[in-house]
This record gives sequence, C-alpha cells and structure tokens, in this order.
Amino acid sequence: MTDLSAPPFSSRHIGPSAAEQQRMLEAVGFESVADLVAVAVPEAIRAKDRLQLPAAVGEAEAIAELRALAGRNRVLTSMIGLGYHDTITPAVIRRNLLENPGWYTAYTPYQPEISQGRLEALLNFQTVVSDLTGLPVAGASLLDEATAAAEAMTLARRSGKSKSNVFVVDADALPQTKAVLATRAEPLGITLVEHSLEGELPECFGVLVQYPGASGRLRDFRAVAAAAHEAGALVVAAADLLALTLVAAPGELGADIAIGSSQRFGVPFGFGGPHAAYMSVREGLQRQLPGRLVGVSVDADGDPAYRLALQTREQHIRREKATSNICTAQVLLAVIASMYAVYHGPEGLRRIAHRVHRHAVALAGGLRQAGLEVVHREFFDTVLVRVPGRAAEVVAAAVEHGVNLWRVDDDHVSISCDEKTGAAEVAKVWAAFGVEGGVEGGDVALDEDALPAALVRESGYLAHPVFHSHRSETAMLRYLRKLQDKDIALDRSMIPLGSCTMKLNATTEMEPITWPEFAAIHPYAPDDQAEGYRELIGTLEGWLAEVTGYDRVSIQPNAGSQGEFAGLLAIRAYHRANGHGERDVCLIPSSAHGTNAASAVMAGMRVVVVACDADGNVDLADLDAKIAKHRDALAAIMVTYPSTHGVYEETITEVCAKVHEAGGQVYVDGANLNALVGLAKPGEFGADVSHLNLHKTFCIPHGGGGPGVGPVAVRGHLAAFLPGHPLHNGTPVGPVSAAPYGSAGILPISWAYIRMMGSEGLTAATEQAILSANYLARRLAPHYPVLYTGRGGLVAHECIVDLRQITKETGVTVDDVAKRLIDYGFHAPTMSFPVAGTLMIEPTESEDLGELDRFVEALVAIRGEIDKVASGAYDAADNPLRNAPHTAESVSADEWTHPYPRSEAAYPLPSLRDGKYWVPVRRIDQAYGDRNLVCSCPPLEAYED
Amino acid sequence: MTDLSAPPFSSRHIGPSAAEQQRMLEAVGFESVADLVAVAVPEAIRAKDRLQLPAAVGEAEAIAELRALAGRNRVLTSMIGLGYHDTITPAVIRRNLLENPGWYTAYTPYQPEISQGRLEALLNFQTVVSDLTGLPVAGASLLDEATAAAEAMTLARRSGKSKSNVFVVDADALPQTKAVLATRAEPLGITLVEHSLEGELPECFGVLVQYPGASGRLRDFRAVAAAAHEAGALVVAAADLLALTLVAAPGELGADIAIGSSQRFGVPFGFGGPHAAYMSVREGLQRQLPGRLVGVSVDADGDPAYRLALQTREQHIRREKATSNICTAQVLLAVIASMYAVYHGPEGLRRIAHRVHRHAVALAGGLRQAGLEVVHREFFDTVLVRVPGRAAEVVAAAVEHGVNLWRVDDDHVSISCDEKTGAAEVAKVWAAFGVEGGVEGGDVALDEDALPAALVRESGYLAHPVFHSHRSETAMLRYLRKLQDKDIALDRSMIPLGSCTMKLNATTEMEPITWPEFAAIHPYAPDDQAEGYRELIGTLEGWLAEVTGYDRVSIQPNAGSQGEFAGLLAIRAYHRANGHGERDVCLIPSSAHGTNAASAVMAGMRVVVVACDADGNVDLADLDAKIAKHRDALAAIMVTYPSTHGVYEETITEVCAKVHEAGGQVYVDGANLNALVGLAKPGEFGADVSHLNLHKTFCIPHGGGGPGVGPVAVRGHLAAFLPGHPLHNGTPVGPVSAAPYGSAGILPISWAYIRMMGSEGLTAATEQAILSANYLARRLAPHYPVLYTGRGGLVAHECIVDLRQITKETGVTVDDVAKRLIDYGFHAPTMSFPVAGTLMIEPTESEDLGELDRFVEALVAIRGEIDKVASGAYDAADNPLRNAPHTAESVSADEWTHPYPRSEAAYPLPSLRDGKYWVPVRRIDQAYGDRNLVCSCPPLEAYED
Repeated sequence: MTDLSAPPFSSRHIGPSAAEQQRMLEAVGFESVADLVAVAVPEAIRAKDRLQLPAAVGEAEAIAELRALAGRNRVLTSMIGLGYHDTITPAVIRRNLLENPGWYTAYTPYQPEISQGRLEALLNFQTVVSDLTGLPVAGASLLDEATAAAEAMTLARRSGKSKSNVFVVDADALPQTKAVLATRAEPLGITLVEHSLEGELPECFGVLVQYPGASGRLRDFRAVAAAAHEAGALVVAAADLLALTLVAAPGELGADIAIGSSQRFGVPFGFGGPHAAYMSVREGLQRQLPGRLVGVSVDADGDPAYRLALQTREQHIRREKATSNICTAQVLLAVIASMYAVYHGPEGLRRIAHRVHRHAVALAGGLRQAGLEVVHREFFDTVLVRVPGRAAEVVAAAVEHGVNLWRVDDDHVSISCDEKTGAAEVAKVWAAFGVEGGVEGGDVALDEDALPAALVRESGYLAHPVFHSHRSETAMLRYLRKLQDKDIALDRSMIPLGSCTMKLNATTEMEPITWPEFAAIHPYAPDDQAEGYRELIGTLEGWLAEVTGYDRVSIQPNAGSQGEFAGLLAIRAYHRANGHGERDVCLIPSSAHGTNAASAVMAGMRVVVVACDADGNVDLADLDAKIAKHRDALAAIMVTYPSTHGVYEETITEVCAKVHEAGGQVYVDGANLNALVGLAKPGEFGADVSHLNLHKTFCIPHGGGGPGVGPVAVRGHLAAFLPGHPLHNGTPVGPVSAAPYGSAGILPISWAYIRMMGSEGLTAATEQAILSANYLARRLAPHYPVLYTGRGGLVAHECIVDLRQITKETGVTVDDVAKRLIDYGFHAPTMSFPVAGTLMIEPTESEDLGELDRFVEALVAIRGEIDKVASGAYDAADNPLRNAPHTAESVSADEWTHPYPRSEAAYPLPSLRDGKYWVPVRRIDQAYGDRNLVCSCPPLEAYED
Repeated sequence: MTDLSAPPFSSRHIGPSAAEQQRMLEAVGFESVADLVAVAVPEAIRAKDRLQLPAAVGEAEAIAELRALAGRNRVLTSMIGLGYHDTITPAVIRRNLLENPGWYTAYTPYQPEISQGRLEALLNFQTVVSDLTGLPVAGASLLDEATAAAEAMTLARRSGKSKSNVFVVDADALPQTKAVLATRAEPLGITLVEHSLEGELPECFGVLVQYPGASGRLRDFRAVAAAAHEAGALVVAAADLLALTLVAAPGELGADIAIGSSQRFGVPFGFGGPHAAYMSVREGLQRQLPGRLVGVSVDADGDPAYRLALQTREQHIRREKATSNICTAQVLLAVIASMYAVYHGPEGLRRIAHRVHRHAVALAGGLRQAGLEVVHREFFDTVLVRVPGRAAEVVAAAVEHGVNLWRVDDDHVSISCDEKTGAAEVAKVWAAFGVEGGVEGGDVALDEDALPAALVRESGYLAHPVFHSHRSETAMLRYLRKLQDKDIALDRSMIPLGSCTMKLNATTEMEPITWPEFAAIHPYAPDDQAEGYRELIGTLEGWLAEVTGYDRVSIQPNAGSQGEFAGLLAIRAYHRANGHGERDVCLIPSSAHGTNAASAVMAGMRVVVVACDADGNVDLADLDAKIAKHRDALAAIMVTYPSTHGVYEETITEVCAKVHEAGGQVYVDGANLNALVGLAKPGEFGADVSHLNLHKTFCIPHGGGGPGVGPVAVRGHLAAFLPGHPLHNGTPVGPVSAAPYGSAGILPISWAYIRMMGSEGLTAATEQAILSANYLARRLAPHYPVLYTGRGGLVAHECIVDLRQITKETGVTVDDVAKRLIDYGFHAPTMSFPVAGTLMIEPTESEDLGELDRFVEALVAIRGEIDKVASGAYDAADNPLRNAPHTAESVSADEWTHPYPRSEAAYPLPSLRDGKYWVPVRRIDQAYGDRNLVCSCPPLEAYED
C-alpha cells in the first residue's frame, strides 16, 4: 500500500533532501551514508545497537503530548519568593524577542560587527545593573544568583587584601545561594561561615550580605561593610534589582561587588530558569569580573561600536590560570530584562516597586491588625509571619485559595509580593491566615512605608535616553526590530561555528516554553503542581542516558561549564568515598577547550597537560609518561570526543583503558556529541562521565550567548555523586545551580527534538552532519589546506581550514577572512581555535546543499581575492579583505579612495545583489575599547548639547 | 493614597506621552486637548454622554478574560467540510508570518518598491492558483469562496456573449455560495436557477459547477462546459485546490473561470474566516478580473520588480462604472496559503491530497462493508452516507467520540476527510455509525482510488524553483525573513496613510487569534461548541453599537466593501418593505471614495453625484437641487464623515435632515471613524446606517492588504434588514459573506482593543489622533500648503498637503515626493486621493512625537530639495527626487553619473546613517508591466540554461 504518512520531522530538521544527499556523497566519493560512516567512525567505538527511544512522532503529535504534560502542571499564584518572583513579560517583548528567531537563534557576540543589536541590548543591561547597584562596572550576565555569589566569593578571594580562607555568608541569605557557595567553596579550601552579621565579624576575606534578606528583612549594612573593609575583606551584596529602585544602592552602602538575579524584570519563573544573574563591581575590580563584559570601542571609520571588552580575561585563553570556567551566559534573558527596563523606564520601574511594596505593607498591616506576629518591621516585598505550630496549615489553606506561600519552618510562613500582586491576592493570603474581610480603611490602606528612612534611595538611575524614549508599544516594537536587523542570526544564514553546533531551533520545539503551564511555575512550587515538569525531566534524563550510554543524568547544570564542574565533582567525591582523597590530578590534552582546565581547578584538581601529536591526537607516549608520573594521584583525564580538531581519534578506547588501569576516571567532554548521537556512546566506549550541551546537540537555541543547559551524565558508580539540592533529599555533592532542575523552563525544547526525531532521525542527523562536514572539506580542499583528518582522509562533523601559510605568504589573516565573510553575508567560522591561524567550520545537518554551496562559493571567491593580494593585483594594505567588512555607508561614500572598485567591495558575487545583509559598523578596534573602557550607556547629561 | 495601578494600556497604545502631548498642544496653539476638540469638532455632532463601556482592564486581565471566553469554545475534530477543512499550519509559518508584525502590520502594496516581499509571496499565490486550476491568470485573492462566486457571476455576465439574465448554479454547490449568489443576483436583475447539471441546461449567461460537489461527488463537467460554451455562456468552476493536485484542472475541463478557497492550505478555520478566496481566468478575461493582480515589471534600472498590475480596473478609479466594489483582499491569508505550497512543494501537496483521499476511501469502504449506503462512488475527500431517519443520531454519536459530522438532512450524513484525518478519526466515524472495529485488511486497507479515471490529473504544476528549494525549516525560515526584510511595515516606521488609519496592532490583541480554541472552530460547529465565540461576538457588536450610536450591528461583512453593500441592501429592503420599491437613487458627493458608488450599483441603485464646494464640503445648493429632482426616487445619500478631505463638515446635520425630509436614508461611511470615537456618534447625529472598518479604527492589522472586517451598524428601523445566513434563521436579506460571522477568527483583536481602552482610552485616542493631525498640519504648513481646513483652521484626524503648485513650478510630482520618502525610510502618505496632486497624511494616535518629528523633518528636507530644483541647484530631470528611491546598489555603483553626490541620495539626513531601510528596487515602471503582463512565476524550464 502507498505510504500515507506525512514526511517525518527529521526531513524538515535535516537540511539536504535525499537527492541533495546523493550529490554530496558523490562529491565525497561514497555510495551511501553507511559507507561513509563505516570509514569515518572507528569500529571500536560504534554503538552495538540502535538507540532505544520511542518511535518518532510528528510536530502536531509532539505538541499534543507536550500540551498533555503541561496540563499536569498547575499554575497557582506563587508568593514563595526566595529569589524568584512573578512578573509580567510585556507581550511586545515576548512576541518580538523571546519568540523571535532573529533574537533567539543568534550566537555569542564574538564577531562584534554582526552583533551590534544584541551588544547594544547588553550594554543597556549593564547600565541597568550598574545604575541600580551604584557600582560602575557591570557584566553582561551570569548564570544564576547562586553561582554569581560563588563567582563573587572567588573574586573577593583573589582581589582582597585578607589572607583569610574564610568567607562569611549572611544567615539570611537565600538557601540555594548558601548551598551553591558550599559546593564551590569546599574544593577551593574556602571555609564558609554563616553569620547573623550582628556583632563582630570573624576574620575573613569576604562577606556576603543578602539585601533584602531571604526573610524579607531590609537591613542597612553600612556598618558591616565598614568593619569588613577595616579587616581587608570585600563586601558582596546579593541584591534585588526591583528593591533597588526604592532603596539605597549597594555601592552607596559600601559593597564592593553586587550580584543578584534579573528574573523579576520580565523573565518568567520557568520552574527555576533560565534567568540572567548580574554582577557589578567597584572601580578597580573590573579586570577581575567573571563572564562577559560589553564595552564601547570604535570601528575603522572612528564611529562608536560595541564589542566584548577585556576578552583576555576569559577562560578559553587562560586555561588553568582562569579565574572562572564561565563561558555561556544568559544573554537572551539579560536582553529581556534590559528591554523590560527600557519599556518601563525609571519611573515605571519605581512605580512597579512601589506597588509591590505597598501591597506587602498592606498585607503585613492586615495580619498585624488581626493579632498575628509579623517578624520584621522593615522589608521591601516579603513578609515573615510567626504562627507557632501552624505554618503547614496556613500554607495548605493558601493553596486552597490558589496561592503558594513559603513554609519557612513549623512556626513561620513567608509571603512575597510581586508585580502581579493585587488586592485580590492580598485578601486570599489573609484568608489563608484566617483573617476575615479586609482591614480598616480598605484593602491597601496603610499608607506608611516599611522602608527604613536611612535606606530610602536618593540617587537617580537610568538617565540615558534609551530608557525614556520607548514608552509606547509602537516605539518598543521598532526598537526591537531595529536592533535585530543589525545582527546575523540563523534566520538569515548559516553560522558555521566549529564546536558550537548552530543547528535548527525548530518552532515546534520553541513554542511550548512560553506556555503559561511551563513558564509560570515557581521552582519551589509544591510537587503536585509540577507533575508534568517532573515527568518531562525524568523522561528527558532517561533519553539522554540512552543516547550517551550512561546510567544516570542530571539536567541541573545550567551551562556546559557547570556540567563539567559537576562531572569533576562526582569524580572527586567518588575517589574520596573510596578513600582516595589524594587523587587530584586531572590530565588534559593540550588541544582541550580552556574551560576544561578551569573546571578542573574549580573542582580542586591539579591540571597536568598531555601533549598532542602533529595530527592533533593525544600523544600516547606522553600520556603513558604522565600517567606513570602521577599514577597514585591520578583522578581523571578529560578528553573531547571527537577531538577538538574534529577528528575521531582511533585511540580513544586505549586512552580510556590506560587511565582506568591507573585508577583514574575518564571524562569525555560532550561538546562534539553531534558527531556521535546514534553512532557511538561515550558511556559504552570507555568514559565514566560526560557533560552534554543541550544548546548544541539538542536544539536549545544559543540566544545570542545563552541560555544553555549542560547536563552531566555518569555511569552507575558515579550516580550517587550527582548534584543535589537543599530543597530535595541530600546527596554527598551539593548543587551546582541555584534551581533544583537548573534551566527547567527550556527543557521542553530538547524533549521535543528527541521525541520528533526518534532513533532513526537522530542517527540520520549525525550521519548528515558528518557528510556535510566532509562535503565542505572536500569542496574547500582545492582552495585551502584542510587540517587534521582521520581515516580515509575524513573528518568528523567539522573541519579546520588552515590559513597560516596563506598569512605568511600574503599577510591576509584569519581575521581578514572572517570579516570579509560578513560582506558575503556569513557569520565567520570559529577563529583560531583549537589552532591559531585556522578556521574551524561546522555546518551541522540542518543546512541544505544550497546554503553549503553558497558558503563554499564565498570562501572560494575569498581565496580568489587572496590570490590577488599574492599576485599584487590587490594592494597588500588596501584591499577588500583588509578593509572588510564594508558598510553601506562606506561603499556609497562620496569619496572612494581604495584601489579596488566599490562593486568588488559590496557585491563580490552577483547573488549578493538580492537581499544583501548590510553590516552596521566597520571592523572594530578591540584594543582601543580596552584602553578606554566604557561599559554602560552615558548618562543623559552627556546628550545635552 | 498613592495610585498603585499600573499605567493603562491606552498609555502604550497612544504614542505621545503627557509631556509630548503638551508640547504638541503648544505648537497647535491650545492649552488643552479639550480646548482643541471644542474648536475642531462641531458642537452639533458632539455626543451627549461619554461612552457606556465597561471600565478598561490591563493587558493581563484582558488576556485572562479572553482565555475564559476561549475556554467556552470546545475544540472537536470537525469533519463537516462544506468549504472548510482542518489543516496544519506549519509552525514555522505561524510564528514567522502569522504572528510576525513584519508581515501582519504591512499595508496594501500600493507602493510597490517597499512591498517587494509580499508581492513576491502573492505572485507565488497566483502561481499556485493558476497552475492548479489550469487557467493562466490568477488574482491576488478575494474575500471568500461565496463572494468570489458572485464576482465570477458578474464577470461572466459582462464578458459572455449571451444576453440571458440567467445564471445557473450547480444544485451541488455549497449552501453559503448559493445564498450569497442570491443576495448578489437579485439587485442586479440576475435570475438564479439551481440545476442538477444533468440533461439540458437552461438558457443562461453562465453556469457554476462545484468541483467536487458539496455532497462530495466528483463529476467530469466537460460536457456541461461544452454545452454552455455552445450557448454563449461562461463556465465557472468552484474548485478545491487540494483536490486539484490529483484531479484534472478546471481549465482542462473547459472552465473559463475558477474560484474557490485556499483555506485548507494552512489557514485555520477561525470559525469561518478570514481565509483567502482565489479566482483565475482564461486568456482574454484578465482585464475583467476583480480585485488585485500582481504582475512583473521593471524598475528604473531595468531590473525585474513586482507591482499591482492593471490598477485602472480598480473601483476607486472607475467609481460607478466599477465592475466590483472589492478593495480589501485577504493578503495575509493568501500569503500563508502560498507559503504552505512553497514549504510542501508539489510532491508534498500531492502526498497530502493522496492521504486525504485514501482515508476517505477507507472510510467509505468500511461503511459499505458494514452494509451502509455510500451515495457517491466517486469522490475526493467527502463521503455522503444514507442512513434513513438516523442522521441526527449518527451525528450525535460522533460528537460523543469527539468528531463533528454534517447532518445533510434527516436521512444523510456527510463526512469530509482532511490533512489531520488519520486512522483514529476514521475509526471514530465508523463507531458513530455503529460499525465496530476496523475493516478487513486493516484500518486504511482499500487500495482502490475513488477518482474517476477520466479525471486523474496528468498535467504538472508548481515547477518554479521557489516550490522546490524551501523544504527544510531552516530554508523556509530564511525565505520568510528575506521577503519580510524587503518591506516597510509598521514595525519599521510610521505609515501615514490618510483614510487608512495605520495604528498600533498591539501584541496582546493579536495573541489570542492563534489559540486553538479560537483558531480551530469550524463555522458550522454545533452551537454548544462555540459559546465563547458567540458571547465575544455579541459583546463586540454591542460595544460597536454603543460607540457608533446605532441600535444593531452585524459583524458578518468581511470587508468594508461588503459592509457598505450590506448597509445599502438594508436601505433597499426597508424601502421595499414600506412599499417604496421605486426609491433607487443614491446621492454621492463628488469627493466620495470610489467604493461607495460601486456598492450602490451592486445594490441596484442609481448613483447621482452631488457637487462639493471649493472647501471640499457638500454643496448644499446642489444637494437641494438633486433632492428636488429625485425626490420620489430618493433612496439614500452616502457621505463620509469626517469628509474624505479630513474635515468635520459643519453642515452634516443639515444634510441628514434634508435627506430624511425627502424620505431618504442617510448612510455614513465609517472609514474616518477614528476621528469620532468617543466624541460623536453617527447614529446620534443623524445617520441611519454605517459600516465600520475594524481594520482601521479597531486595530485589526492590515496584513499587507487584508484581512479586514467591515461591520454594518443600523438604527432600529433597519435592524430587521441586516444580513442573514442560510444556516441561521432567515432574514429578509441574505448573507453578504460565506460564513455566518464573517471573519470571526480575528474579532478577538477588536474585542481586546475596546476592552483595554474603555471609554476614556478610546476617547483619548481620538483626541490624540486629532491633535497629531493638527500638529503635522501646523508643522508642515510653512513648507507645503495644507488643503481643506475646518473651523479655526483645524483639520480632523488627517491633513492634505497640496503639491499642485509645486508640481506646476518645478515639475516635482506627488510621485517624486512619495518615492523620495522611501529614501528617508517612510511609507508614502495616500497619494492623489481625494484630490489629484496631493498627499493625505493620517498620523493616528499611536505615533509618538519623536516619530512625528522625524516625519516632519523628512518632508521639510524634501521641500528643501524641491527648492533646489526650483532654483536650478538641482537638475530638473536628474535630481534625488526624480531618481528616488535609491537602492544600495545604485548609490554604490562604480560609476556615479548624477550631478548630486551619493551622500545626498543615500543619507539626506544624518539620522539615516543608523539602521537605514534599503529599498530593494528602484522606481517601478507601471506601464511596462501592464503592456507585458506576467502574473505568475515563470516555469522551471525558463531557469534551465
């Protein structure tokens, strides 16, 4: 009978059609994909069976199943607080940013010229943070408040004058912050001391103040700060951005560092994430700031332009000397938070904060009037009530009224007001406490503030015009469009980034994340309100275990860096549990991504580098030597597979065996999992632990530099050492992320991807990714040397083209080629990683043959331009490569002084004449920006003339 | 106490802030908006009270209320058919087109240079229709299948050789088609004859064949066509596009005209609409085609470019000689249908059709096997079953299984299969008929087709590459982005179109329309499945009655033109009911929009033109004369208020009184209602009937040229004569649209707008619209003469700048200014309406002061350029105005031959250097395209060289 089934989703996800695939196979010289894979992928690592996953379903069925799961989450009003507050995402921002591929499919802004839109948005974010915290330099987001606190702790340790190993934590800090600090402190030998911050401080290198406290208490910490400074310690304030619109800025109270979450600026709960954390620092600490920092520089025409500043701080450069392993940030969420501030402006934010505060005051007043004991007199949004022995009962009664409160202990309940709190919610809370009716004078009657007079904010904020000129929806919409149009994201063209796997983020995968049933669940909502979430998470963890060949997976780590850290912690805890606490050496090949070494250091390990041979493979002799030297101290080896050079190393099983034999554990970095899914399983071919990147292999979009999800997957013997959470049953290893399930809110994306691809689809995707990389390698080889190939001259899922000889002969650099690709409408491949002077190209399975050929055509045309430089037909210093990228303004300038014609600058290929992307700035001067560091929008006064 | 309420939605909808409003008032010379309105709006028409509407709610509350209404619709599987079939909107198309303001906020492509994206999409639509119907020229969409049938009927009448007044309708035509044909035929003196199309045809000028029939029957109509042609009649085929992928094209069977719906190409039910109808015609009829037609022409550089062809056919030029009153089309929906075809391609469409057909075959087979009588042997998707006396019972049983079937009569049930039908649905239908289990050989077992051998399609279709190169979601996404980027819509800049009211289409208003509970309801679903819809519709009709001061409103007309027609039909029926069938004269001022006259003709009236005075107002003396002359035959007057000149005519109440005194009715065209809402009510100041444009005043987006909704509002004495529907209780006047509630699917937009604005918000919007128009008039007056002002030199909500003297003195035309505005990033105002040689500007309330000032700045700069032409500083024939618009390609050309510098062409204002919109083509040669008419994509072969 005729096949009546609709084409599978995989035929939409995978770019090339069957006919295109055949043409590609011909070009690579194979009859079938199976033949290609048989040669490319070493037999030793091939999976024994096909993946055991449920049969793929179509898009409509997947949505129906997700609707059913969503229906098993119950959306109540959550007034739980503890760092997560309900908020209204303005619809214009949700639709045109959070639901717009122009924003969510963008990559990290390492190529600043094609990232001016999101860089401006991030500069706005930094301005919001800097202004509200009263500290001059803010970064472009961190992963969550708890890990930001941990980053602040280590920053304080390396920057302060104190030699103490003690870090003091406010007893009123958020529980998840305390727990993550503990996880992070222990391997580094830092002693955490919890302290009331009343009376004398212990000797310490830093102190963290929660402002306002988890209990709601709002406290003036000037004296604490003075005492800390006196003792040479740094002060970290974990502050609520919304509260800061009404109360004195941390910087004004003496904080050296401020951290916190920007979630309540329009970012939904998402059952715990993703949300953007922030960090700002006082003058003098900016070069210690972890994560990314956007700064203002100038382009080749001297016009202002944005780019990431001080990039040398980043871990991929500093490796084991890195100060943090942070890589992915939370750009998409930071951008939402910044746009929330742009849309509301300072007066709008202040009004929202005032409304929140007034409702909290009314709520407390009503309870007091009814004879209940409200513990703190001074608070912003959170009211702590003492109800001896009755806490559970009150919380249960509140649920009956559709409201979640927080049971602090048997005798205390806390209630946090938020942007959505109105008289109705206040009345429901009163009812839960058994307070009948309203209070005297109406429902929000008490006109006194509960803010300490000494803390009332005097200083202004957000004076820049951007926060004053987008008050109508029309204006906001156009601002979002204007910024989006400046950038290249996947909705324009291929982003061929080696090791970053920029594949399709399908709409069907993306749609569920903004459904209220997924978006509006507080991470600490009662279990029976999140049944759908927990089933989805359990299923996804199971599928990921199947795909990777491991026994257990935790999706808690909310970035690859955190997954790495968690994996190494598991190894460390395992050795300790076996009485081998002395095992602390982590072997890392010289080709590894810098994050690996940084993570090892964070996990308390010593990094020992293993050499690579000329082909980029682990040098087995050196490995033997290093194992011999560190045999008794050997904790682990961390390798990436396929290697960072994009090659399936033949010796991987041997490497695993050698390390195991010496008592070490094998960590396989899952960054390149897109070359393995369905064909090979790290857990099967010898590894003990891996982290995956759901934002690479499993279709979570990059969001312009985050969110990411970095699950950690382990074999059975390490399962007990996966990350725990203070709100769940304890495990030997604490949490690595603030929320129990990390960035749960975006897990439906990966769930949907696996559900719609099934075993066959996933495997076909991997095969196509390998074919596409080899097709590019084959097409480019006549024009550029292709580095590092494996068996049969094949690569894995990415290929490296080597420009070093070209640079030597012509002076044309990797940078020149990357910037010239912009003129051809493409995002550059990964530059100078893993090898300086090269470009690493990963096409992924999602690009069709037409786009691959356009990319080849561009690189071939560029090679022709290089040849003109070589032959002297182009001036060595003034040619289209060196001057790239060319703006519309530059090619239409009245004076044209270059020796090559304008048409060669603008339209080197005829196809560019239809719908050309015009880059908004010319090549950016990186050094200028670092010398003249400007990391926030100039204040209004600067515009007055 | 401090006001804790969030700023109302109106503060987001209305562009200028309070401070900006104050500055604008100063410029116009008033202290307050009230003062301005007191002078601008004649006291005589001012409403007595504020609007009686529920208090405005915020966006979150409005969404909650809409969710509650949506929850009262029940989404079942609807297999009712009758021209509406369930379909899967590909998620990538829904998110990036239907939910993307870059598409939905665009205007009708009258300015083709900034509309190349949607024009290309419409050309694709025309190609789909033309290829599938086998007729060479297809238009760019009509309102619905039933009105398309009516348009085909009148086309046949004016084009055929027969002098007969009879139009033959297939007895197996859709019921709503028959009913709308009847409504449209009667006033034109056409006799409709329903006929089985078996045996001899009556003498007629045309015949309509439903293909396949409403009963599902698939019939070869070659013989009918031959007989009709023999008798000099034209043949209209109402055909199902999906069926046409498998069966012979109407053109191949002898149809002269094909019409139908493109709904099942990815457009949701929406309780009846909006959906795009299509029409295609054989060679020789193209100049008779109603509605818009996209054609290929060339631009000033000779490059191919799209634009509307044969525009002189349109009613706004031909007025009472118009052949149709169609104005708004269904562009957004036509674009969705075209993209559905682009995404699936011919082989995908064929597979979908095959799947639909095979399930229908299986369904019929199972029923036959169980001993039931399936009436037709040959069908595509619809199975008619004879169940004597049991029809109601079977339909009820099906509902129990979650499926809606169609009860044809007591003895017959019909079932239509669609893209979503699978084995499960077939089994449910069987169960409803009492057929247990599957049928022999599995659930979709019968391998014979039910297509007549003579009708199996042999010809190919969709050979153009566009239908072959967007098969992956990535490719589809980029195609949508690329087209969108070519156009100017409201998400880029102001669209200051006089009489078209391009205001904010807020996201919160737009979000509900794609919820399944609104999108997935069949228009003939049982009443208890659409309770939410009916409440929403009832409420909206009530609010519109309150806003306009009328007693009853019908939202059935799915465009303003249909509302006009319905209003005039009501007047006609009223006179007849009063024994005044002789009253058939419709007075129309010379300044009226051409549609008015065309509608009057369609309603069987004679148009008598009333002169206007030098100020553009109705000439009362001429009015008196015309009334005197036609006193006994006077049916109505149609006036637009404020006038099409944008002025509140002082004499409107007098005009109404005079007409009433003579026994006529007063029709006020509601096109300019945005100048009245909350300030004046036509139903109060003297009118009897109006139509409104929900896509102007009430925020339904223009969608690039539709959808629109044109409710008709009447005073009590006309209420009985509002349009009816064959599926509802009869009324004296038949339906004007196919679906009972017209384009019900987009009514939540207007509902949300009124709900969130409330009386105060709506009134404030009107006041701001008036202030903004007067602000522009005041700012522009020193540079351009402003035509037609009322009291105090004020205009209403739009203003006309007069270029006639400028043109005379300098040769610079309205066209030059309009095209030059593109270089400044703006869509042109309305050109040469109502007065040739002028521009009519309507800013609306949604533009903030910054945008208004940017627009003024552009027009002032252009005036400076005009002065340079006048002074000779610019060459009269070769200047930036005459050469506008300038593409990036033209300003970066290697050779620059113009006497003005490139920078003046590209960046006449410094602000344009940030985020300039680059027009994709230069000025388009209209005449060339009409001389060389090309209205579909060239076939694949044209690309083979």
